[in-house]
Amino acid sequence: MASHPHSGDPVFDLHVGGKMETVSTVALTGPDELSLAYTPGVARVCEAIAADPSMTQHYTWVPNTVAIVTDGTAVLGLGDIGPAAAMPVMEGKAVLFKQFGGVDAVPICLDTTDVEEIIETVVRLAPSFGGVNLEDISAPRCFEIEARLKERLDIPVFHDDQHGTAVVALAALTNALRLTGRDAATVRVVVQGAGAAGVAVARILLEAGVRDIAVLDRQGVLNSERSDLTAVKAALARDTADVFGRRGTLADVMAGADVYIGVSGGQVPEEIVASMADDAIIFGLANPTPEVHPDLAHKYARVVATGRSDFPNQINNVLAFPGIFRGAFDVHATAITEGMKVAAATALAELVGDGLSEDLVIPSPFDPRVPGAVREAVSAAARADGVARR
Amino acid sequence: MASHPHSGDPVFDLHVGGKMETVSTVALTGPDELSLAYTPGVARVCEAIAADPSMTQHYTWVPNTVAIVTDGTAVLGLGDIGPAAAMPVMEGKAVLFKQFGGVDAVPICLDTTDVEEIIETVVRLAPSFGGVNLEDISAPRCFEIEARLKERLDIPVFHDDQHGTAVVALAALTNALRLTGRDAATVRVVVQGAGAAGVAVARILLEAGVRDIAVLDRQGVLNSERSDLTAVKAALARDTADVFGRRGTLADVMAGADVYIGVSGGQVPEEIVASMADDAIIFGLANPTPEVHPDLAHKYARVVATGRSDFPNQINNVLAFPGIFRGAFDVHATAITEGMKVAAATALAELVGDGLSEDLVIPSPFDPRVPGAVREAVSAAARADGVARR
Repeated sequence: MASHPHSGDPVFDLHVGGKMETVSTVALTGPDELSLAYTPGVARVCEAIAADPSMTQHYTWVPNTVAIVTDGTAVLGLGDIGPAAAMPVMEGKAVLFKQFGGVDAVPICLDTTDVEEIIETVVRLAPSFGGVNLEDISAPRCFEIEARLKERLDIPVFHDDQHGTAVVALAALTNALRLTGRDAATVRVVVQGAGAAGVAVARILLEAGVRDIAVLDRQGVLNSERSDLTAVKAALARDTADVFGRRGTLADVMAGADVYIGVSGGQVPEEIVASMADDAIIFGLANPTPEVHPDLAHKYARVVATGRSDFPNQINNVLAFPGIFRGAFDVHATAITEGMKVAAATALAELVGDGLSEDLVIPSPFDPRVPGAVREAVSAAARADGVARR
Repeated sequence: MASHPHSGDPVFDLHVGGKMETVSTVALTGPDELSLAYTPGVARVCEAIAADPSMTQHYTWVPNTVAIVTDGTAVLGLGDIGPAAAMPVMEGKAVLFKQFGGVDAVPICLDTTDVEEIIETVVRLAPSFGGVNLEDISAPRCFEIEARLKERLDIPVFHDDQHGTAVVALAALTNALRLTGRDAATVRVVVQGAGAAGVAVARILLEAGVRDIAVLDRQGVLNSERSDLTAVKAALARDTADVFGRRGTLADVMAGADVYIGVSGGQVPEEIVASMADDAIIFGLANPTPEVHPDLAHKYARVVATGRSDFPNQINNVLAFPGIFRGAFDVHATAITEGMKVAAATALAELVGDGLSEDLVIPSPFDPRVPGAVREAVSAAARADGVARR
């Protein structure tokens, strides 16, 4: 490999030339093969698809290929670094899609941050892909982009920063509740952060039967007395804090809370952590610095999870998105429904089985059973929800 | 492989599942590799690119990846079959890019035929790709789309239906002129067809020093007395038939002509073929039915070429586009210039060398020397033309 500006640094050495390539699945060793795979033979395949578009499912790579679409506005913890600088993350995502889901994936980094332009661009690209994974697009734009693309397209559209995180968090919480003898219907949950992940986590918890949730942004608990809420936050307030009249600051809602889920960055002061209920559950998901460091969390909580691989209970999206798309693609699903997401979370939680303990509420990303379990659960849920086409 | 609707048909059997996939070039076998290729390690690569966009060239797959962009309006000889039905051709093109040029390629079939929308979409996609190969977009829209994308982007933009055909036709013609003892400056050429290929063939012949060219559309020779010409055709008329005052019908200009290049479909009547000069050169490039069948052409001409693999002298774009992009990418070229195209044609012509004969004016697509020869010539021309960035 040629020399490069950061030669000798293992991260940069690994990234030379990027992390992926396109490869042919057919041999083109001579004129005969060329006349089958390309002209003149290929014309008959084109005509078959023109006559019956469903033939795309059989004779192209489209039904197994996802576009990973970003505008580079919310990349990892780095923020708005633009489309070019987002590419290494999107390539990494593509590699994970293939490795854990057998899904072909193409990084699409867009040179626009305009909501209408992003939507129009993805709609125009849609004939080329079997699904769209939205990635690292900042809130609240990500909500509108996803909602409107789901309306306009009949292929799966999935914003992983929202739903991947939500699925894995729900899986871990399901097991943490089991371990601590709690019930979803009565548990008291605090979600700190009302961006992409926070909104989606709260929504999937509601879907899973949790009723007492307080979601906070930087101004405090989302509730209908506030006049500064976006439409997405206002709707969420009605379904969360309004129900039990939760109000105020983080300190107000953490006192006596059973579960804290941090998806905001920042740090929770120790006296607030200490105010939680006995046998508390603390998920500090900010990377690389959890909202509550595990050493602190363990002084007061019974189950602790983070986004990091160097502590137990890693809440890692890679547990979810490859199997979710694999399961959706297997049945040629037209969408990814709430039921498919909850099914993925349930499947992940069940994999832990008898190994359940404070240090094992979620499987390892390298547990070989993960992709297959998620895949099967998602395909079954797609059929149950009526979005499977085969 | 699962059963499929056209099972047993070799063309369809080969196409099951499509013809390509994405593959990782890095191993992700455990947490350590994951932390280099993805979070947290990847963040440092993103930051390096954010600080210096030229780092994209070192640490992503972008500089080796071309978008193959079509709207499905002029696919092979099938015409406007739409983006979904165009996909098998675009996948085939991607396979050829990789096999003959080592270039990664992604098929992008757009769900719009609007010129402005196509341009805007490609501009927005540009951070994801090192080059754009426009494909099977109908004339005259293809001319404006290519010209305006070249203005707006600092990566190679190349409409293969125009320039790939033109480069290979020029290479074959160069050798045919040598074989028949003719000189570009005095040879009389007829180009039948003023679509994407016809315009580009005429333009590259002018670039190569041919002066006496008549280009015909269905209404006859393009010349400035006609009031029905598009801007592209009007400009071409001034540079071709106007120069020597060529006018009229195909029969008018073929009488005594040295070279016929058909890129129009249709059939040339035998009496018109018979009216050409001695030792005539006839390229009937329509597929699958040449404008002049080789059996007929050989009655009157000394050198005959077609687009078909089952006759000698196949004018096949695959001789050009993989090496052209390879050579452009090798030097990180900002564009593909006229000089780079002519250099590619010259390199192709020279490969024939001492083997030159009536049945060998252009190398075989499977001649292993082809990609390297084109690549080196194109890189050198990029440097000479001042568009190389390294």
